[in-house]
Amino acid sequence: MSGCGAESGLISLDQALDKMITATPCLEVETLQLQQGLHRYLAEDIYAGIDLPLFSQSAVDGYALCTSGEIAAGEQFQLIGEIRAGQSADVTLQRGQAMRIFTGAPIPAGTTTVARQEIVQRMSSHLIQLETALKLHADIRDVGEEISQGQLLASAGQYLNIGAIAALSMAGIDQVQVYQQPKVAVLITGDEVAQSAADLQAGKIFDANAPLIAAWCQARHQPVHIVHVEDNKIALIRYFQQLQEEYDVIISTGGISVGDYDFIRPVALNAGFEQVFWKVKQKPGKPVLFAKYRKSANKFCHLLALPGNPAAVYVGMSIYTQTLLEVLQGQSQPLAWWTGQIQHDLKPDARERILRMAACFEDGVLKLHSLAKQQSHMLSNLMYANCLVRVPAHQPIQKGQCLKGIFIQH
Amino acid sequence: MSGCGAESGLISLDQALDKMITATPCLEVETLQLQQGLHRYLAEDIYAGIDLPLFSQSAVDGYALCTSGEIAAGEQFQLIGEIRAGQSADVTLQRGQAMRIFTGAPIPAGTTTVARQEIVQRMSSHLIQLETALKLHADIRDVGEEISQGQLLASAGQYLNIGAIAALSMAGIDQVQVYQQPKVAVLITGDEVAQSAADLQAGKIFDANAPLIAAWCQARHQPVHIVHVEDNKIALIRYFQQLQEEYDVIISTGGISVGDYDFIRPVALNAGFEQVFWKVKQKPGKPVLFAKYRKSANKFCHLLALPGNPAAVYVGMSIYTQTLLEVLQGQSQPLAWWTGQIQHDLKPDARERILRMAACFEDGVLKLHSLAKQQSHMLSNLMYANCLVRVPAHQPIQKGQCLKGIFIQH
Repeated sequence: MSGCGAESGLISLDQALDKMITATPCLEVETLQLQQGLHRYLAEDIYAGIDLPLFSQSAVDGYALCTSGEIAAGEQFQLIGEIRAGQSADVTLQRGQAMRIFTGAPIPAGTTTVARQEIVQRMSSHLIQLETALKLHADIRDVGEEISQGQLLASAGQYLNIGAIAALSMAGIDQVQVYQQPKVAVLITGDEVAQSAADLQAGKIFDANAPLIAAWCQARHQPVHIVHVEDNKIALIRYFQQLQEEYDVIISTGGISVGDYDFIRPVALNAGFEQVFWKVKQKPGKPVLFAKYRKSANKFCHLLALPGNPAAVYVGMSIYTQTLLEVLQGQSQPLAWWTGQIQHDLKPDARERILRMAACFEDGVLKLHSLAKQQSHMLSNLMYANCLVRVPAHQPIQKGQCLKGIFIQH
Repeated sequence: MSGCGAESGLISLDQALDKMITATPCLEVETLQLQQGLHRYLAEDIYAGIDLPLFSQSAVDGYALCTSGEIAAGEQFQLIGEIRAGQSADVTLQRGQAMRIFTGAPIPAGTTTVARQEIVQRMSSHLIQLETALKLHADIRDVGEEISQGQLLASAGQYLNIGAIAALSMAGIDQVQVYQQPKVAVLITGDEVAQSAADLQAGKIFDANAPLIAAWCQARHQPVHIVHVEDNKIALIRYFQQLQEEYDVIISTGGISVGDYDFIRPVALNAGFEQVFWKVKQKPGKPVLFAKYRKSANKFCHLLALPGNPAAVYVGMSIYTQTLLEVLQGQSQPLAWWTGQIQHDLKPDARERILRMAACFEDGVLKLHSLAKQQSHMLSNLMYANCLVRVPAHQPIQKGQCLKGIFIQH
C-alpha cells in the first residue's frame, strides 16, 4: 500500500459529491407516454383527474340489496337482475329488491348494502334469503375512498418505479413530464487492454471496464456508447472533439493520474472543460476528475474521468456516475445511504475507504462483513458482495459500529 | 372486510411456495456470450483459466529497480529504459539498474522492488536517486495473488449481476452456460377494463394490471407478451390453446375466484392443466391458482392465475411470479426475505397479510412503517412504499417485533 493518502489538498468524498451536485444543472424536460416513463424521474407534480374508485362498486361477488336498515338473518329479497363488472346499472333498486352483482361492478342506485354470496341462499330464480344478519353499507367500495379528484398523486422529482407506473395507470394518467435521460459516452483508455483473447499478448490484460460499464448501464436501463481508445494524445483529442458536443456525459477510465501517459485531464482542459474537482481522499479511486464543458447557454457536457483500475471503476460508477445521472434528472439528494453494523474491527487508513462487503439481516439489524481482496486491481470478491460500505479515514473502526453503505445487487 | 379468511382447507403462503418450488423443474441450459448473461443464472461452475494478475506488474507509476536488498535513501540507479502498460519487458535488469515503469506494466525480469515516482529524483536522463529508504518487493502485484488458475470463480445457480460480469470478464471468461429465460405470456381478463380513456364508459375502469406487469417484467429484463381478453369462455379457450404450447409461463389476472364469470380455472383444467394449488390463506390475493401442463416428456407450461385486484396482482407478481421465474432458472431458495422491526402495533387477521410499507434504516436497524389504504383494490400507496412485509395470521403484532419482508424499489 502506498501512503499517497497523506497528500494535502485533497477533498473528501462528501465534498466531492456536494461539488458535483452544485455544479450540475438538470437536463431538459420531455413528455412521455406513462409506460415509457418507467425508471425516469418526474419533472411535474401530478394531480388526480378522477376519483378512485371511479364509482361506488361491489367489493365481492354477491347481491346488492335495498333495505330499510340493518337486516336480520332469514330476510328475503326479490331478485330483479344482474350486473357484472364493466356494465353500468340502469335501474334503481326499491326496498326489498336485490340484484346479483360481481366484484368491481357499479352498485345500482338505491343499494344500501351488499351481501356476499357465501351468506345468501338462492330460493328460486327470483328470490334470495340471507343466512346471517348484515349491516348497512357492507362490502361497498365508495367512490373516491382511495383518491379524490384534484388530490396530489406524485411529486416532481419522484422516481417512476413499477408501483408508480401501476398506480398512475389506475388513475388514468397517460402522459408524464420527466427529465430527459442523459446521453452517455464512455472512453476506455489503456494500451494494455486486449480486445479479444486472441489479442492477449504479453503485457496485455482482459478488459473488465467496458463489460462492467456496459452491464452497469444496462441494469439501469441507461443507453451508453462505449469506445476503446489507445493511450495517445491525438486520438483522445479527436474523440473529445466529437463526443463533447454530442453527449451530456463522458465517462472515461484510466489515464487520469499524473503519469507521463495520463492524457485525459490535459486533453479535457484544453478542449474547454472546466475542472470541478480532481482527486478525492478515497480508496479506491483517488484520482477521479469531474469537469464540465459549456456547449451553449445552458447545455453542458460533463466529464467524469475515473482511474483505470476496475475496482475504482466499480466504485466510481456506483457513487459518482449514479449521483451524476440522478442529479441530471432532477434529484437533489441522490444516493440513499443506509447504515449497517460492522461485525469486526477495521484498521484505520489515511483515506476514506469504500469496501466491498456482504450484508445480511439478523433480527432487523443489517450486519456487515468485509470481504478479502479489496485492492483496486482486484474484482473477484464482487461475486460475493452485495453492498459498498464507507469506512471513515483515520479512525480505527470497532465491531458493532454503524457504517454507511449502499446495496449493489443489480 | 369480509371474513373469508376463515375458510378451512386453504394452504399457507409458505406451503404454497414450497409446492411451487417442488412442482417446477428447471428450464434447459443455453450458452451465451458473457455480456448477454447479465441478469441470468449460471448453470455451471466456472473455474479460472488463468492466473490473476496474469503477470507480475507494477502497482504504481515509478521505477522498477534491481537491488541486492533493502535500499537506503540516496542510493542511485542507472535508468536503462521504459515500460508502459500493455508492453512486454524484453530485458533483464542487472544490479544497480532501473526502468521507468507505469501502473499495470509487467515488471522486467531481475526486478527486486518498485519505487513510486513520488520518492524518486531524476538526476539526468540516465540516472535516478531514491529520496527515501525502500523495502524489497514494494508496489508489486504478484502473478496469481488474486486468483490461481483452476480456482472456482462462480458456482452453478449464481445470479450474474454487474459485479459478476465484470469479474468474469477480467478473468477472461467469454461464454457462460445459463438457464434459459422463461417465455412469458400474460392474459389480462375483465370486461371492466377500458382499453383507452375514450373507452371509459360507465362501469369501466382504467387498467392498472397490464401496465403493472409490463413494468415489472421490463424492470427485470424479462420479455413478456401481454393480451387482453374479455370474460368469455370461448375466447379464453382459444387463447389457452395457443399460449400453452408456445410459452413456459402463462400469468393471468382476474376470473379466478368462484364467481359465475370466473372462467380461468375451469378452462385451464379442461385444457390439460393439473392444479398444484388453488387459494392461499393470504391477503391480498387469496384465490391464486398455480397449475402446470405437460407439453412433452419434460416440457411444461406453468399457469399462475392471479386475482384481478391490482394490489393482489402486485403482491402475486412480487412473490409468486418472482419465485416461479427464479425456480425455472435453477434457484432452489428464491426470494431472500429479510427481517425488519415494525414501528407500531398491528391488529390480528385471519389470513397472513402482505402489507405495503415504508422502510428506513436507523443505526443499522431496518424500521418498518405500514402505509394507509392497504385494500386489494387500492394501489396509490405504492408511490410511497419500498417494501412488502409479511404479517402472520391470528396473532396481534407488537411494536418492535421482527417481520419478514422484501424490497420493491425497482
